[in-house]
Amino acid sequence: DTKLKIFSLESNQPLADEIAKHIGLPLGKSSVKRFSDGEIQINIEESIRGCDVFIIQSTSNPVNDHLMELLIMIDALKRASAVTINVVMPYYGYARQDRKARSREPITAKLVANLLEKAGADRVIALDLHAPQIQGFFDIPIDHLMGEPILSDYFLDKKDIDLESLVIVSPDHGGVTRARKMADRLKAPIAIIDKRRPKPNVAEVMNIVGDINGKTAIIIDDIIDTAGTISIAAQALIDKGAKEVYACCTHPVLSGPAFERIENSAIKELVVTNSINLPQEGRPVKIVQLSVAELLAQAIVRIYEQESVSILFD
Amino acid sequence: DTKLKIFSLESNQPLADEIAKHIGLPLGKSSVKRFSDGEIQINIEESIRGCDVFIIQSTSNPVNDHLMELLIMIDALKRASAVTINVVMPYYGYARQDRKARSREPITAKLVANLLEKAGADRVIALDLHAPQIQGFFDIPIDHLMGEPILSDYFLDKKDIDLESLVIVSPDHGGVTRARKMADRLKAPIAIIDKRRPKPNVAEVMNIVGDINGKTAIIIDDIIDTAGTISIAAQALIDKGAKEVYACCTHPVLSGPAFERIENSAIKELVVTNSINLPQEGRPVKIVQLSVAELLAQAIVRIYEQESVSILFD
Ligand SMILES: Nc1ncnc2c1ncn2[C@@H]1O[C@H](COP(=O)(O)O)[C@@H](O)[C@H]1O
Ligand SMILES: Nc1ncnc2c1ncn2[C@@H]1O[C@H](COP(=O)(O)O)[C@@H](O)[C@H]1O
Repeated sequence: DTKLKIFSLESNQPLADEIAKHIGLPLGKSSVKRFSDGEIQINIEESIRGCDVFIIQSTSNPVNDHLMELLIMIDALKRASAVTINVVMPYYGYARQDRKARSREPITAKLVANLLEKAGADRVIALDLHAPQIQGFFDIPIDHLMGEPILSDYFLDKKDIDLESLVIVSPDHGGVTRARKMADRLKAPIAIIDKRRPKPNVAEVMNIVGDINGKTAIIIDDIIDTAGTISIAAQALIDKGAKEVYACCTHPVLSGPAFERIENSAIKELVVTNSINLPQEGRPVKIVQLSVAELLAQAIVRIYEQESVSILFD
Repeated sequence: DTKLKIFSLESNQPLADEIAKHIGLPLGKSSVKRFSDGEIQINIEESIRGCDVFIIQSTSNPVNDHLMELLIMIDALKRASAVTINVVMPYYGYARQDRKARSREPITAKLVANLLEKAGADRVIALDLHAPQIQGFFDIPIDHLMGEPILSDYFLDKKDIDLESLVIVSPDHGGVTRARKMADRLKAPIAIIDKRRPKPNVAEVMNIVGDINGKTAIIIDDIIDTAGTISIAAQALIDKGAKEVYACCTHPVLSGPAFERIENSAIKELVVTNSINLPQEGRPVKIVQLSVAELLAQAIVRIYEQESVSILFD
């Protein structure tokens, strides 16, 4: 008989606290400190012998520090005789480096998978990987949860939008499957933003495939990073006749000029999850953050109880 | 027939330039950039097919960024069909986390070795590892070079010290072997600083084993980090009758208050190598930096020519 223990590292303490509350267990005692020269020092402050351990860590910015924290923690748990080491990564950094687009490029998303396995992870629980193929980068079991139902439910429950006049918009061809799922749940049609460069050295044109005229558009993406594409897409939708534009995504990376761009964009409300911990400072009020804590808590309990997680997958 | 190619990452460009000059080869073209969210993007800008590649990178502060740069570069080189990938690490970060001193501690120096191998390194060239046992953390060949001869030669050539009245001081028991080697080369006796805590909760006493009275003391260590120990040791030597105190080490980590402590210490001159790139700003003039470029260049050429490197080992 094993015991369940949940530890949080530094990237997303509020989410970890929420997950622990849902499960009804206190977080395991550990600390992450820095030596004077910047090297990470991890202390696990309670026995984990005979335990199934879950570590909660998003490899968000600063990605290299958060990843090394995670690898060092895995190493420490392994040496302290954890029965299984399960890595819960609400956000998987480096996921966009998932293929060789050009010669002599690394495939860093695969490197990260290799490093996690080598350090000693037995299982990974991830949320909306940039490409579902990243599951195949692992030789250990990986559970791949989706943020879309949480985002969709928010809009379903929303009082002040007209569910009859919705259109779900994919900002690119890669995201059509995700938009399709949301459209099914919201019983709405879809549209696709079809970026094309008519001639070399001429600006891209945002062509919209599908009917958006007079409709409330919801753009859905997995990651919003600098918010450039999404802001331009929102404006294009308004220009082509959409009544209003919402945007949503699972992972609010929101780096560089993102806050400012969102603030100044045609987007009425941006709905994101708490897979990444967002700073309060400078954050536009039009950003609404939904919690994935319950979803992750359910996954953790089901894995610990050795029940199938696939029930959580749609 | 393979070709030799040398690449530098970001931690120590001046040293890499010097090594390349010694070998008479230009550094390979590559770039390390950051995406807006802080993720590292590496581009290798020339073919390395059929090449024996050497990457020069110290995993000094910021250690996690420098380590990830290195791992990503190794991944990219492997996928671009390098014949061998040789990692030159003038400074090996996390080397002090080399054993479980307490329960549930990680052994991060071993984790780093595992990560380098998993990424695809074929060979490691290191300098003065904090513990020589770290060589055994690798399953791939590792060459372990020493900084002591370079430090010793500096004092041998020094005009303004009296070689007849020298004593070589180890700042702790772990460093006696290193001090013994320097003492042999400089034909001097040794002394050892024997820190003891007479009772619990009483300050440590710096007891000095060996004759230092009226002598010029040279303290030798592998790493000087916050410079606390070395400053106190220098003062203890002066208090116990040493005429003057020099200090030297291979790796000038020099974090936190180190510059200030060295400036204000009894140390007349601190001699270090360029295994770690030091900022100019705030740097005490009493720090003398010697180059390990020729040593590393010789090691690279001998490994490439498949000659023994052991000739460089003393
Ligand atoms: N952290 C990052 N920030 C911005 N772009 C990235 C990042 N990582 C990878 N990329 C680029 O994003 C593209 C992959 O995105 P996608 O085409 O949507 O799969 C590739 O061209 C990558 O070079
Ligand atoms: N980056 C670091 N800065 C300061 N102390 C460290 C660092 N890494 C490890 N240590 C500690 O240094 C000790 C090892 O040094 P030593 O006894 O000289 O081998 C251990 O107690 C470690 O906890």
